[in-house]
Amino acid sequence: MLPSLFGTQRTKEILKVNPTIMPVREEAKEVRVFVFDYDSETIDEKELKSVNEALPFLQSKRTSWINIDGLRKADVEIICNHYGIHPLLIEDILSVSQRPKMDEVEGVLFCLLNMLYYNEQKQTVEQEQISIILGKGFVLTFQEDANRDLFNPIREKLKIPNSKLRQRGSDYLCYTMLDQIVDNYFLVMEKLGERIEQLEEEVIRKSNTRSLARINQLRKELIILKRNIAPVRDLVGSIIRSENELLDDRTTKYFKDVHDHIIQAYDLSENYRDMMVSLQDLYINNVNLKLNEVIKVLTIVTVLLAPATVIGGIFGMNFDVIPSAHNKWGFFSAVGLMLFIPLVMLWIFRKRGWF
Amino acid sequence: MLPSLFGTQRTKEILKVNPTIMPVREEAKEVRVFVFDYDSETIDEKELKSVNEALPFLQSKRTSWINIDGLRKADVEIICNHYGIHPLLIEDILSVSQRPKMDEVEGVLFCLLNMLYYNEQKQTVEQEQISIILGKGFVLTFQEDANRDLFNPIREKLKIPNSKLRQRGSDYLCYTMLDQIVDNYFLVMEKLGERIEQLEEEVIRKSNTRSLARINQLRKELIILKRNIAPVRDLVGSIIRSENELLDDRTTKYFKDVHDHIIQAYDLSENYRDMMVSLQDLYINNVNLKLNEVIKVLTIVTVLLAPATVIGGIFGMNFDVIPSAHNKWGFFSAVGLMLFIPLVMLWIFRKRGWF
Amino acid sequence: MLPSLFGTQRTKEILKVNPTIMPVREEAKEVRVFVFDYDSETIDEKELKSVNEALPFLQSKRTSWINIDGLRKADVEIICNHYGIHPLLIEDILSVSQRPKMDEVEGVLFCLLNMLYYNEQKQTVEQEQISIILGKGFVLTFQEDANRDLFNPIREKLKIPNSKLRQRGSDYLCYTMLDQIVDNYFLVMEKLGERIEQLEEEVIRKSNTRSLARINQLRKELIILKRNIAPVRDLVGSIIRSENELLDDRTTKYFKDVHDHIIQAYDLSENYRDMMVSLQDLYINNVNLKLNEVIKVLTIVTVLLAPATVIGGIFGMNFDVIPSAHNKWGFFSAVGLMLFIPLVMLWIFRKRGWF
Amino acid sequence: MLPSLFGTQRTKEILKVNPTIMPVREEAKEVRVFVFDYDSETIDEKELKSVNEALPFLQSKRTSWINIDGLRKADVEIICNHYGIHPLLIEDILSVSQRPKMDEVEGVLFCLLNMLYYNEQKQTVEQEQISIILGKGFVLTFQEDANRDLFNPIREKLKIPNSKLRQRGSDYLCYTMLDQIVDNYFLVMEKLGERIEQLEEEVIRKSNTRSLARINQLRKELIILKRNIAPVRDLVGSIIRSENELLDDRTTKYFKDVHDHIIQAYDLSENYRDMMVSLQDLYINNVNLKLNEVIKVLTIVTVLLAPATVIGGIFGMNFDVIPSAHNKWGFFSAVGLMLFIPLVMLWIFRKRGWF
Amino acid sequence: MLPSLFGTQRTKEILKVNPTIMPVREEAKEVRVFVFDYDSETIDEKELKSVNEALPFLQSKRTSWINIDGLRKADVEIICNHYGIHPLLIEDILSVSQRPKMDEVEGVLFCLLNMLYYNEQKQTVEQEQISIILGKGFVLTFQEDANRDLFNPIREKLKIPNSKLRQRGSDYLCYTMLDQIVDNYFLVMEKLGERIEQLEEEVIRKSNTRSLARINQLRKELIILKRNIAPVRDLVGSIIRSENELLDDRTTKYFKDVHDHIIQAYDLSENYRDMMVSLQDLYINNVNLKLNEVIKVLTIVTVLLAPATVIGGIFGMNFDVIPSAHNKWGFFSAVGLMLFIPLVMLWIFRKRGWF
Repeated sequence: MLPSLFGTQRTKEILKVNPTIMPVREEAKEVRVFVFDYDSETIDEKELKSVNEALPFLQSKRTSWINIDGLRKADVEIICNHYGIHPLLIEDILSVSQRPKMDEVEGVLFCLLNMLYYNEQKQTVEQEQISIILGKGFVLTFQEDANRDLFNPIREKLKIPNSKLRQRGSDYLCYTMLDQIVDNYFLVMEKLGERIEQLEEEVIRKSNTRSLARINQLRKELIILKRNIAPVRDLVGSIIRSENELLDDRTTKYFKDVHDHIIQAYDLSENYRDMMVSLQDLYINNVNLKLNEVIKVLTIVTVLLAPATVIGGIFGMNFDVIPSAHNKWGFFSAVGLMLFIPLVMLWIFRKRGWF
Repeated sequence: MLPSLFGTQRTKEILKVNPTIMPVREEAKEVRVFVFDYDSETIDEKELKSVNEALPFLQSKRTSWINIDGLRKADVEIICNHYGIHPLLIEDILSVSQRPKMDEVEGVLFCLLNMLYYNEQKQTVEQEQISIILGKGFVLTFQEDANRDLFNPIREKLKIPNSKLRQRGSDYLCYTMLDQIVDNYFLVMEKLGERIEQLEEEVIRKSNTRSLARINQLRKELIILKRNIAPVRDLVGSIIRSENELLDDRTTKYFKDVHDHIIQAYDLSENYRDMMVSLQDLYINNVNLKLNEVIKVLTIVTVLLAPATVIGGIFGMNFDVIPSAHNKWGFFSAVGLMLFIPLVMLWIFRKRGWF
Repeated sequence: MLPSLFGTQRTKEILKVNPTIMPVREEAKEVRVFVFDYDSETIDEKELKSVNEALPFLQSKRTSWINIDGLRKADVEIICNHYGIHPLLIEDILSVSQRPKMDEVEGVLFCLLNMLYYNEQKQTVEQEQISIILGKGFVLTFQEDANRDLFNPIREKLKIPNSKLRQRGSDYLCYTMLDQIVDNYFLVMEKLGERIEQLEEEVIRKSNTRSLARINQLRKELIILKRNIAPVRDLVGSIIRSENELLDDRTTKYFKDVHDHIIQAYDLSENYRDMMVSLQDLYINNVNLKLNEVIKVLTIVTVLLAPATVIGGIFGMNFDVIPSAHNKWGFFSAVGLMLFIPLVMLWIFRKRGWF
Repeated sequence: MLPSLFGTQRTKEILKVNPTIMPVREEAKEVRVFVFDYDSETIDEKELKSVNEALPFLQSKRTSWINIDGLRKADVEIICNHYGIHPLLIEDILSVSQRPKMDEVEGVLFCLLNMLYYNEQKQTVEQEQISIILGKGFVLTFQEDANRDLFNPIREKLKIPNSKLRQRGSDYLCYTMLDQIVDNYFLVMEKLGERIEQLEEEVIRKSNTRSLARINQLRKELIILKRNIAPVRDLVGSIIRSENELLDDRTTKYFKDVHDHIIQAYDLSENYRDMMVSLQDLYINNVNLKLNEVIKVLTIVTVLLAPATVIGGIFGMNFDVIPSAHNKWGFFSAVGLMLFIPLVMLWIFRKRGWF
Repeated sequence: MLPSLFGTQRTKEILKVNPTIMPVREEAKEVRVFVFDYDSETIDEKELKSVNEALPFLQSKRTSWINIDGLRKADVEIICNHYGIHPLLIEDILSVSQRPKMDEVEGVLFCLLNMLYYNEQKQTVEQEQISIILGKGFVLTFQEDANRDLFNPIREKLKIPNSKLRQRGSDYLCYTMLDQIVDNYFLVMEKLGERIEQLEEEVIRKSNTRSLARINQLRKELIILKRNIAPVRDLVGSIIRSENELLDDRTTKYFKDVHDHIIQAYDLSENYRDMMVSLQDLYINNVNLKLNEVIKVLTIVTVLLAPATVIGGIFGMNFDVIPSAHNKWGFFSAVGLMLFIPLVMLWIFRKRGWF
């Protein structure tokens, strides 16, 4: 039970990252395909029955966003081959636990990163891989999980005619997605921040093994967090530097904005790490203080005991001549002395600031 | 009560930094608009009733400084749209807890950073966001709080005709502001330095949990400090490298001066951090020394007790034949021995340097 | 026996790295030479009796892969001289425990790195040096150990006609090898990850000297791991930047893929290190907790003992007048008091949260 | 008294660095102006009564070195304005506790750094700011303290006709000064090195609070040292890279020499820091060893006491039938047992290596 | 005696590095001059009586290697002036404890570095400064100590006609020397590695103050080591980048080989440092374990003592009515109880895993 308290199961998940050897991605049970085909005035929005229905949109003169929720090898290959995506990118889309990265291959701009969610129940950071392919006039997105998604606000904005999102092309749509994903990192960090704060209060109030277990768990979640944020910083930086012709000059400014945010997220995650170090120091300090407290009790008891033991020993000796032995108040004087001496000792110690 | 002593509330404020998702900036209750419109000989200085009155200054051939204290979305948009500021910058101005940054967008140079104040009562570093927009012939500044401001010295200098500030254009005004803000960082650091110094004295005199709480608090304030200084260093560096045409060659030298100062502030904040590490080491050391002291008392008492207990036990045994039992001085010899042996022991220990 | 538990023998192997002074490589007892000579349609695959038989393949118009398992100075020199390999590279091939590196010398691209294996029995990471020489139309590989090899999957793929591997030239074969080797690093890391995980559980359950020994051992294996991964990252990066004419533009993409993987391996090895630090902290913490536990027992016993000792001492004094001495229930009251007082003390301590 | 032992006063001085807000430099009480006006054959050397007398040397065709010891605002301004020094540099000269820096402004090369002295009495590193202005045919130096100076060896060398210093121009003079200042850093470091060495011996011999205080003090001095050396390294590097036309190609080699020295000083200061860390580890270790020693004494005493207490208790019980109670040698056997058992216990413990 | 055990004398030597102020190099008592003048077919090898005899070799059309063992100011100046070496380099050759560096001055390539030796007796790393001057057709080497030398293998190789060393020019000779020196670093590191290994075994077996002293000593030797390796890495890197015309393109490859080795040496020295940190952790851990052991003994003894003391106290009370006091077996029951209770307690403790 102890190891589970410390989240050793989580360790397994963190350490078993293997991008190449076992791309045995389980085929999604459920696949959902949505298409938005729009220009500034008109918009078509529909859920398709299969990926095959998405193929004609390549010819659309409007901007098309094809979102595939749930990954099946066959589906991904059909659509990617039709849209002219390089086989290596298809492999990347289908791979498991890839490092976030950006690539420019044969006329498309490819971004692979993770959406992060905070699982309130398990108190863990969960990741869902998303691949965004920006091409001339289209954006393809591939998500792992059909049931959750960060893009609803984008869908709402898309429905408003003449909004900036509708006026600008596919690059602006791609920016909006990255922005949404990075913004969500802050939501996750906020949750982690709350946990750090609660832990700090807990550690200050009572430091026990449970607190240590929590600190250990949280450190693992922060590893997950940083592992995602650091490469995304590079990813967005690469987009800005790429000078890809798919990116309008006017859109570059917006990517810079995302870059500012992801840098801030990175800085913040560094602050989190500092906080965790402080927290661990605090924990150790508190455990030590408790030990000191116990040793002080030990000392006080020994000190209180000392004179009584000695006096009892003295007057318990079997000598014929013992002073005051026959005195009526002898016993009571001795007992009084047993009480008086420790009080004096305590007074001295307290004066010296030992207790 | 303990957690508040450790400033856990402050942790919340440090960790909840989220630049994008919740720009729910509270609308300022009070907005004050000041304008300085000057050239080397003439100056107009007035408080305006609304931002609308500030619009005509765009046509002014003199240098105009429009300072808006207190942020309301509507106001910011009116004036920025009139002055041709990019919508993204408007968002930045209105956002909360942004990372300091510098941007060149469509002919203006935009700086967003924080003014720092030291709150003597709460012993915390407070930040107020300021946006400085340097355009051709004008400087716009947006501050959060209508009631405090670092720019009074600048106002005074502006009133002096033919001063350098009056002779040079808007870029020199912008430099003066950054200089003022960075100079104020040193004031804040000085206060923190005083706190470190007091804490050091306190920790050396008596290390208790309260000291630890104070060290923890101060570490948090230093995080706030560094989080502000590090990006401002980059900000000023970017201005110098930008070769923006808004910046006169002669002014660049002055920005280099600010750069020197902010680098020094950064170095100093590193020294502060070193000091805090030393302080924590000192604290831990003192706590340990106290523990050692207590354990020594324990040992001394035990040592003093030992011979008396043994002797008392020996002569308390109920044997028929006990040497000296019938001797008149037996009791006193035994007690004397009880006193003599520990003294010898103490003498030995002291000689060996144990106490 | 203790030092062997701590793997001091392993320390010797880690520290005795000397690339230059003692290239006294033991001559391999067994040498096996395999040749694959292929183009997209046809393939020759045979085991040769001696390296001399491999010389004619230089004239082959198809792509030739000559793999030499087991290093003998004479053999290496014969083949390398025939294929025009620079003497320095021959030295590198024959050297022991070289740092992984890449070199472009006189028209060939030379990679020297280590294949890693995890020895389940000894729980160590084993390395086998491999040299890959990519030339115009041929790839030479030199391995140390004739009996193990990572390249079987490549051999299988080579047998499939018109596969990508068969269609592309020698550079693609070289990529496939590096990919295979780097992929195998992840397998080794997975094993180490499992060990870390087991150790974490063990340390949480019971921290003894054996755990410390295991932590120490594992730290050494991680040094071995990192020592191999870090330079391979540079190696692959150099290949990508080299713009060597041996590398087809289409192949560069694949090397970028390997680069992504090796970077991820590096990141992961950093996570491992963090985990090990956490683990060591945990170990120390647990050892301390155990000490505290023991000291608490000491204190409890002393506290329980205290009143009984004092009361026994009091009523054991040889005074004539001792209250209740002649009372029938005196003895039992005294003993009762001996039991009652410690119970009260314990109740107080528990209420204060000391135990 | 304790805080002063720990040098908290010094903390104040280290932390209160504020280059901009309070340039309330105290006006020097004493100002001394020296001029050397020389070429390879002839030299004029005189102490001037006021800075006004130094103005005509601007027209001198020989190389002029004007050294001003003691800073008064009026004096500095008179001479700088005459020599065409930029107002910002005048501010720098007059400022307090600036970070060392180098600047090229309007045809002069400006270096501001600190000369370091080791105050044997206070055992602190003292700094004196020096500004060196290298112009065409002249060098101006401004020092804070009229009474101490590092430049006497230069003065001596200047008096030798046809020496290299006399043959080369002002840039070589400037080099000689920097060389002298950097050389002096080594003298200061040597003193600090001696202190570290003494401290190491002291800590090994007897680690008490006084040692800790000394370690703390020394760490502060090392902060001062590093704060001066690190920016001077950049300063000299900037001079070499500057390709300023004031610097003869032949002189650059000499500046490289200074650069080598300052890098070595920097490396050495890193070694010092490592040494201090070792020292602190040693201190902590020794304090712990002492604690262990005391706890061992405690244990030995308790162990010695144990059997005697038990035996005494056994034979002190008031039973009618106590074996050997009436035996003549009973008492002596019991006491013998009291002595014998602890001896056996000690023998066992020692054999197990506990003491 | 303790401080010497900790090698405080060595601290002095490490910290007293002062390249500039005291070049009071002691004049060598013994100077030996060797000359090799060779081309691919012919060779002259002789020991000269004085440096003056070495001057004519400047005109030799063959490659000349003039090796001066033992430094005397006059000798160095004679030969350097004849060979056209810049005065600054002469100063460098004569200086003491310089940082390794490389310089290109007036047509020669100058390398100053240290040869390292491991002194088995003192268990220290000793350094001997060597200056290598590579000029057109000649190599000058200056060593401090006439009695030891790393170059015998080079001398042997030189005697073989038509060897590569004989065929190539002075740059190849220079490479061979650097290679020899760097190779020797590995020999020294191997010795240090053995020491680390022995220390590890020792620390695991028995951690006493002597082990700590050894760890401290070894850390100092590693500082010496790193101080030499790090700048040599830069030195060799500079040679490769220099594109000096003295270096044949074919030789550059060989310098790259040396560069690989020195980088590996650097990596290895980092591993050594990690090992030392592990070792120190191990030491601290063992000291703590010993303390825990002692405290456990203390606790066991106290626990054993407790019931006996209480029972003895109970039946030693002077009440009239004591149960079983008149019983024949009372005494034996009480003593039995004294033995029985601690056994039960121990059984409980052991079951809980406390001992």
